Amino acid sequence: MRPTELHADLSLEQPSEAEPAKKQVRVGIVGYGTVGRAAAEILTLNAGAIESRTGGISLRVTRLCRKTADGFEIGSNGVAIEPDWRAVVAADDVDIVVEAIGGTDIAFDVVRTALANGKAVVTANKALIARYGEELFALANTRQLPIGIEATVGGGIPIVRAISNALSADRIQAVYGIVNGTCNFILTKMESSGAEFSDALAGAQAAGYAEADPGLDIDGFDARDKISILARLAFHGAAPPAKIPTTGIRQITAIDFHYAGRLDSTIRLVASAESAAEGISISVRPWLVRRDSMLAKVDGPNNAIFLAGEKAGTQMFYGQGAGGGATGTAVLSDVVQIARHLEQGQHAPNAQLGFQHRGPLPLCESSRPVPWYLRLTVRDHPGILAQAAQAIAREGINIDSVIQEPYKAKEKLPFVITLEPVREGVVQRAVKAINEMEWMIEPVLVMPMISAAGE
Amino acid sequence: MRPTELHADLSLEQPSEAEPAKKQVRVGIVGYGTVGRAAAEILTLNAGAIESRTGGISLRVTRLCRKTADGFEIGSNGVAIEPDWRAVVAADDVDIVVEAIGGTDIAFDVVRTALANGKAVVTANKALIARYGEELFALANTRQLPIGIEATVGGGIPIVRAISNALSADRIQAVYGIVNGTCNFILTKMESSGAEFSDALAGAQAAGYAEADPGLDIDGFDARDKISILARLAFHGAAPPAKIPTTGIRQITAIDFHYAGRLDSTIRLVASAESAAEGISISVRPWLVRRDSMLAKVDGPNNAIFLAGEKAGTQMFYGQGAGGGATGTAVLSDVVQIARHLEQGQHAPNAQLGFQHRGPLPLCESSRPVPWYLRLTVRDHPGILAQAAQAIAREGINIDSVIQEPYKAKEKLPFVITLEPVREGVVQRAVKAINEMEWMIEPVLVMPMISAAGE
Repeated sequence: MRPTELHADLSLEQPSEAEPAKKQVRVGIVGYGTVGRAAAEILTLNAGAIESRTGGISLRVTRLCRKTADGFEIGSNGVAIEPDWRAVVAADDVDIVVEAIGGTDIAFDVVRTALANGKAVVTANKALIARYGEELFALANTRQLPIGIEATVGGGIPIVRAISNALSADRIQAVYGIVNGTCNFILTKMESSGAEFSDALAGAQAAGYAEADPGLDIDGFDARDKISILARLAFHGAAPPAKIPTTGIRQITAIDFHYAGRLDSTIRLVASAESAAEGISISVRPWLVRRDSMLAKVDGPNNAIFLAGEKAGTQMFYGQGAGGGATGTAVLSDVVQIARHLEQGQHAPNAQLGFQHRGPLPLCESSRPVPWYLRLTVRDHPGILAQAAQAIAREGINIDSVIQEPYKAKEKLPFVITLEPVREGVVQRAVKAINEMEWMIEPVLVMPMISAAGE
Repeated sequence: MRPTELHADLSLEQPSEAEPAKKQVRVGIVGYGTVGRAAAEILTLNAGAIESRTGGISLRVTRLCRKTADGFEIGSNGVAIEPDWRAVVAADDVDIVVEAIGGTDIAFDVVRTALANGKAVVTANKALIARYGEELFALANTRQLPIGIEATVGGGIPIVRAISNALSADRIQAVYGIVNGTCNFILTKMESSGAEFSDALAGAQAAGYAEADPGLDIDGFDARDKISILARLAFHGAAPPAKIPTTGIRQITAIDFHYAGRLDSTIRLVASAESAAEGISISVRPWLVRRDSMLAKVDGPNNAIFLAGEKAGTQMFYGQGAGGGATGTAVLSDVVQIARHLEQGQHAPNAQLGFQHRGPLPLCESSRPVPWYLRLTVRDHPGILAQAAQAIAREGINIDSVIQEPYKAKEKLPFVITLEPVREGVVQRAVKAINEMEWMIEPVLVMPMISAAGE
């Protein structure tokens, strides 16, 4: 049995008397950013505990591709540093390749070549799996190789396992939630401090929760990739990201949180996929959620994913949605699971059955009537409310409330109209008419007033 | 490919073109109460969807043991009804035995005999696994057979998978939460309505959330079995239920919720297992939790389990903790997972590594200083507060607040003392001294004022 280099908790480390030492499983890591580094460090730190828990599986990082070898912390374990990823995915002493470089160009080649070389693959790359998951899983299944994707959605939250295994006998009705920690950090900052969007974004960047180029997060594209993956797992068909209606949070202002408060609510960016008779409706958009709802309780950079099953009821999974520790743990959960199969000489079946080739999901707009929040920003003059109300009445929609508070800038006056439950298609016709009115300064901000899918 | 008898959602049912029909996996169910019935019904209802999702695994109930054949709903599928469980666990046409009779006597024989006969086993029986898990898993591992126990804790919440797989590479620091829906239903009823315990219990019984003999639930024994299982999974050693300090909710009164409200808190029954340098501290007891905490948000018969990992951070898993639908779904998630292995001719490894034989956990009392809520019930007369305060001062404990409101019954007067953070052992010495004072009507109600383990 291989000695454990590092251990802090002896109770976890004692070797099992019942089981003999078993096979070593070797890991090659491509990319050494936040995720790759965390995976390498946790694996090295906890190798002894993992060996003890698994009855003798020795996991070891053998090769690592990074641009330079500077500041490499785990070199003492005899890891080979490769400047070229091809050397990692081709190496005889690598059983499992962890793809941690991100992006979709080189990453695609890394995963495809690794599979072609007979290596199991684990990745945290949501963009790659959302776009090319079908193709990569087809290749993996042909080669009887596993691809672990637990880390692609929800950081350390085991939502992929929950959908693929825990609800394998149930019919999933909806999967939805907060899957982008950057947006949630910004929104909860605006909620708690009254800050404007730009200030909250700057705060998120300063705190390391937002990139210098924050578009992927705040425009909803990261959430879109994640709900594409979740929808595929839940509903067993392709939901290409480009086909998912996506609205980010740039348009949300401090005044929206003020009005939300008047409605005993707050604002969250929610990615949602819901099954109905006519098909699957998927979207990424801000929701106006009740303050006493579970969604409203999710603050800071945390994630929370809800899973509604016909028989199991609604479950919620909450935790850190990003960061090296959480994501690295998720990557390694796949590595350990695959290693346990390799060690027994079995191929590990791909549990993510949603990635079997089944063609596209029948996507559609939601036909469920829900209440709506419309925030108009206008150049104030008499008759505006009458005209807006008329456009709404023309579609047969009932207005539930109008909220307009005294506001200094008459040239850019925000006010809110809330609507009684109506289908999205109908409200969008009214919104289109209002957006064409000459006194509108910017397009109407449209948010569904719902706190849970399917309610 | 076997035709699907029942299907509502065609999008889930379309046969996969890519994969041919595969092996049939046959399920025998012993016991036909809430769980056995739900498992049989969901399996029959969703067989087509499962077959489609798994690429052709046909799951079928072939034998079922129940006392009588009256009112048997799924008999049309040619299920053999066996009055004797031995006929189910010995049958050639049974691959997986679902033990759903409950209790620990016959259930133990059912599982042991099934394993001896080479059958895989799935059970929702927390009492059986908490007491005999070690022995049964040892037998299962010898025979290279799996035992699925996802349904033993948290109903449909996949907490067993989360601990055993998702955090397999992390060090778990604590697992805790609300694991008994009956107690939570009663406590949230008392919270919302101001009801006394006995009335809330009667309401729970009327609503079907409490048994006629409610002791297993309200005295904390059900939660104790569950935390015993969770501790074993998290910390890899035995935590026999009899060794876990357990306090139920019988002593909680309406006045406690009133005083809790004054402290901006509420009361939840929490089962907790926490790792520290000196060992693992496990308990079942009521906690005074802040109203804005996640624990306080869990209402009605729901469950919520928190998992704190060193690297993954704290995750929460929330959902229905009981009921046929949720528990049946969890049972079937194990059945499907085992079936996928059987279909490939592989033995399914027991993923619940915590049940490998490792001897006992080093149990200890928590040494973490936390604030405390003490509710005294006294025959009022001058000097009581002075005497109680003196007993507390003698242990070097600081009093944080004393709350006594005008109360009608001077012969049975409740008042509350809250303490600044101190270790449990110290507070218990003070409580012992107070309990011996002659004006005490009943023992002090002692609750830690914490809203999360490890905080």
